[in-house]
Amino acid sequence: MEQDVTELLKEGERLDDLGVRDYRIIQDPDRFCFGIDAVLLSGFARVKDGQKVLDLGTGTGILPILLSAKTKASFLAGLEIQPESADMAKRSVQLNGLEEQIQILEGDIKEADILFAPGSFEVITCNPPYMIGGHGLQNASSAKQIARHEILCTFEDVARVSYRLLVSGGKLFLVHRPFRLAELIQTLCKYRLEPKRIRFVHPHLEDEPNMVLIEAAKDGNSRVTVEKPLIVYGDDGDYTDEIYQIYKMPKYAR
Amino acid sequence: MEQDVTELLKEGERLDDLGVRDYRIIQDPDRFCFGIDAVLLSGFARVKDGQKVLDLGTGTGILPILLSAKTKASFLAGLEIQPESADMAKRSVQLNGLEEQIQILEGDIKEADILFAPGSFEVITCNPPYMIGGHGLQNASSAKQIARHEILCTFEDVARVSYRLLVSGGKLFLVHRPFRLAELIQTLCKYRLEPKRIRFVHPHLEDEPNMVLIEAAKDGNSRVTVEKPLIVYGDDGDYTDEIYQIYKMPKYAR
Repeated sequence: MEQDVTELLKEGERLDDLGVRDYRIIQDPDRFCFGIDAVLLSGFARVKDGQKVLDLGTGTGILPILLSAKTKASFLAGLEIQPESADMAKRSVQLNGLEEQIQILEGDIKEADILFAPGSFEVITCNPPYMIGGHGLQNASSAKQIARHEILCTFEDVARVSYRLLVSGGKLFLVHRPFRLAELIQTLCKYRLEPKRIRFVHPHLEDEPNMVLIEAAKDGNSRVTVEKPLIVYGDDGDYTDEIYQIYKMPKYAR
Repeated sequence: MEQDVTELLKEGERLDDLGVRDYRIIQDPDRFCFGIDAVLLSGFARVKDGQKVLDLGTGTGILPILLSAKTKASFLAGLEIQPESADMAKRSVQLNGLEEQIQILEGDIKEADILFAPGSFEVITCNPPYMIGGHGLQNASSAKQIARHEILCTFEDVARVSYRLLVSGGKLFLVHRPFRLAELIQTLCKYRLEPKRIRFVHPHLEDEPNMVLIEAAKDGNSRVTVEKPLIVYGDDGDYTDEIYQIYKMPKYAR
């Protein structure tokens, strides 16, 4: 196994444990490493046995890999526009022996509805770029900037293709920034993706939320459940029990 | 003073202390008494010195009376469609000697933009009926039902007249139920009342919120602050310090 790992790693890349099963992921700190956002989204998403899942903008494939461990999805696709990230994701899938269940595709979110047939998925996940446009960016083509800023796709693109690719009643799960909440809800509703469940993530109980998790249902009715706050850190400065549960492994908590 | 009070009270009515200054309010338990919703809204609303304020659906006038104590508004109007409630509100204004500052009008929210000139107010407050329509109601004409269900006006009516009656940049402060959040945001945005500040009220930290406080700005830009959760009860079953602060008086806390 160690032989294989060495062959799969390129210069500058590192191998990180994922805490579920023995899964690991290849990342490059100079490009982009997954954050708590992706992990919380994997805990928030609900995938039923046998469902087909698409992750839009999968980066190094963190969402499909975590969801393959946490759920019994029959098939997980990950779409990523950056060739180097897609390549790392493919090698991580191989490393974990998940080629049968996960397929990584290099491609553009804006064209996802051409790559897949309408109604191909019961679940779509997305951890999209949070920042509007590329205002004030020194280098709008760097891997990190593309992952963080709406340079190559907007939230409206995500909503539009999600509506096309989901079955009726299918679910979109996303993580985003609370400051865009009103706009996110408007855009989702414009594409008949009705918000059904919202949870805010607060670093501490006394803080404003810095993330929001949203579940929207294609063609759903207008009634949403706002859940109890998800608090990341307790009074002792350590992760809360719920965060430990989502991460599954104590070593992640430090 | 006691002489006056007796003259101002009708059969079945009672007099309740408001905990700010020596203000009191006339209420009839058989009709509708103000709840924590109104008090939290009065704490959430921000009124600058000299501003003119309108409360849509003022009931027994609780919002204008609390805001006259808590702020330096130059003028507060309260509009109420139910004659008995409007009458109680007028007598409470008289009882507290606030006739110079507060005007109670009997009238329909749907016609508020005829009663007042466009752009008459810097601030509008509203604690509207929470429930959609009058589905399943035994008695859709009772005072409590009218206060709780959208029988005589919808949220869209509130948004429409608020847009007309506010100055550009003016603020609408409202309290509502979280299950309608997506629809509330859509309706506000439809009438160019941009959500700027949202706070969820949770009975306990471990509960879903049962109220949401929203500040929207006429013609505002699309960026909203979601605040830290407002928790009503602590672990000891007593009100939290923040709730005590909003109520201003310990005797209210039991």
